[in-house]
Amino acid sequence: MERRKFLKKAAVGAGTVAAASTVAAPAIAQGRQEMVIVSSWGRDFPGLGTSAQRLAQRITDATDGRITTRYFAAGERVGAFDVFDAVASGNAQAYTSAEYYWKGKHPAYGFFTSVPFGLTYAEQSAWIHFMGGQQLWDELAAGFGLKALVCGNTGVQMGGWFRKEIETADDLKGLKMRIPGLGGDVMAKVGASPVSLPGGQIYENLVSGAIDATEWVGPWNDYFLKFYEAAKYYYHPGMHEPGGFTAFGINKAWWDGLTKADRTTIEACCVQEAELMMAEVNANNAIYLEKLIEEHGVQVREFSDEIYDAFGEAAQEVFEETRAHSDLANRVYESFAKARAQLAKYMYTTDVGYSLKRNRVLGIRA
Amino acid sequence: MERRKFLKKAAVGAGTVAAASTVAAPAIAQGRQEMVIVSSWGRDFPGLGTSAQRLAQRITDATDGRITTRYFAAGERVGAFDVFDAVASGNAQAYTSAEYYWKGKHPAYGFFTSVPFGLTYAEQSAWIHFMGGQQLWDELAAGFGLKALVCGNTGVQMGGWFRKEIETADDLKGLKMRIPGLGGDVMAKVGASPVSLPGGQIYENLVSGAIDATEWVGPWNDYFLKFYEAAKYYYHPGMHEPGGFTAFGINKAWWDGLTKADRTTIEACCVQEAELMMAEVNANNAIYLEKLIEEHGVQVREFSDEIYDAFGEAAQEVFEETRAHSDLANRVYESFAKARAQLAKYMYTTDVGYSLKRNRVLGIRA
Repeated sequence: MERRKFLKKAAVGAGTVAAASTVAAPAIAQGRQEMVIVSSWGRDFPGLGTSAQRLAQRITDATDGRITTRYFAAGERVGAFDVFDAVASGNAQAYTSAEYYWKGKHPAYGFFTSVPFGLTYAEQSAWIHFMGGQQLWDELAAGFGLKALVCGNTGVQMGGWFRKEIETADDLKGLKMRIPGLGGDVMAKVGASPVSLPGGQIYENLVSGAIDATEWVGPWNDYFLKFYEAAKYYYHPGMHEPGGFTAFGINKAWWDGLTKADRTTIEACCVQEAELMMAEVNANNAIYLEKLIEEHGVQVREFSDEIYDAFGEAAQEVFEETRAHSDLANRVYESFAKARAQLAKYMYTTDVGYSLKRNRVLGIRA
Repeated sequence: MERRKFLKKAAVGAGTVAAASTVAAPAIAQGRQEMVIVSSWGRDFPGLGTSAQRLAQRITDATDGRITTRYFAAGERVGAFDVFDAVASGNAQAYTSAEYYWKGKHPAYGFFTSVPFGLTYAEQSAWIHFMGGQQLWDELAAGFGLKALVCGNTGVQMGGWFRKEIETADDLKGLKMRIPGLGGDVMAKVGASPVSLPGGQIYENLVSGAIDATEWVGPWNDYFLKFYEAAKYYYHPGMHEPGGFTAFGINKAWWDGLTKADRTTIEACCVQEAELMMAEVNANNAIYLEKLIEEHGVQVREFSDEIYDAFGEAAQEVFEETRAHSDLANRVYESFAKARAQLAKYMYTTDVGYSLKRNRVLGIRA
């Protein structure tokens, strides 16, 4: 099946550690050096993978090969979730991944991708770049010998595919849903049973009824996985990852040894790619949401206020557990929460309020 | 007065053409070349000016001086609105400005900054980068010997400062408001009298009652102009510039002569700065909106639906006039309108709908 072939090639974490696990130190010849980039994304995975591959190529191009990148998708050199250790240890120079995968190493990592009830893309960008986020991220990453930059964003995710309509918080109780990370912790607190499944196993579990619901990424990626064949109700908005930045994590000793020109160029390429990936994801999600509705009769549903109240309460409990971990985790939360309060109020007067008024006049409805 | 000094230094268009108007061709020595950048923004103007200056420095840094930029703020080399001709003629290599200033040269230019009832930042970015916008922009700019890239964004602007409350569309009739460009055309169609005034003259006209209302930029910039001393009502959301990208316009012959590495680097720096300026503007607007309310008792008001209906009707009339200009103007409109319909619907299911639900749960109100 086309779908299976796609999944086999693309799914995050589907790869196995390549046989050749010894990685040579970067070759340095005639002022050129090699930058090995290991990724958590499958080769050519639309959005996450293609964006990371484009970034790797651009670093080579922009430096005219002074830094020649060699990009390894998940499983091509190390496994999807082994990239952090590979870069921290100096066996590779950089990874492309999502920082919340490292919450086992430090719970504050979640905030630098996205947390439940967190910031949208524009808000997260304001926090990272101009409200203290990057400084806290630098402090966190330096503890592991790393320096990290934003390099992509998946936007506000959809709430997921459900086999039955979910009208009240009670309908969530006992629901078996594929949803990893902190979003899964929130679902557990409202009485659901969160399940972790790799992308390639979601479809058959949904069809067989082994799970009742799943989230994945967004309309563009979800379209190809055909979840609509088993679950007709596509809920929004997702509370679990409202503006997830992907990260370019660099071995700090290597980074500190680069020239100012090379650091400036790499940083420019990474932040550019954050903007481009967000644009690409939004453009394609808009197009594929339309296709899901028109071609496959997908029923788009909005979570009720009562359900969001339950999610909100659970999310705050998850935050409190994170804050209790350490001084750094608490400071990251405090900085995030302050920025969220200021930005959320402001963004209503602009992007959010404007969109509502414009859409009403134009007759555009969700 | 501090304020006047600020304005004298900073206001867009305040500068006069510098005495030395002959501009030497860029010096080329030892593989280095000079890039003269002329700007429509005042020196050190917060946001627009500081972002453009940061970008100019970064191009020098990233190329290790292979391309050494010399940045001239408005009036330091040519006047604010003379930058287009300076670059098109090859007397400078690049400008930082807003494309809608050139709507007299071609009305399609408005779409590449922002138009009334247009796209928000995230939507405009999706359209420019992945829904055909950049290709149309390239076609338009090439007609003038230019190549343009995004390099900043001012976000959804506030609706403006009003001396009296505006409750119905009738209250707009006869109102003298400082609002330039297509936003002014919309205001004229609803019966107001739009006035063009440089930034440095707005305050006294508002205090004297010569004008009844003004728009400027957003809370961060507006705060320092003290409009609240004369006009207590700060309306939102503005319909006139919902996601205005600033532009880096480059002499196309010069651009085409650069190496691939230099073009890649300049493009990365520009798109990076678009993301950074948007982040900086949102962060500071959020902080300064809070200060305006708490320190100066500013009354934040939302335009009524009835007023937005009137704005919407007028905006569509403005679009029809633009479309009638030429095939290119019509194609730009068609591309924009298609993207707007798809993105607006999609963004409600994500950023907009999520923000509303989250804010309600958190008790965050505009």
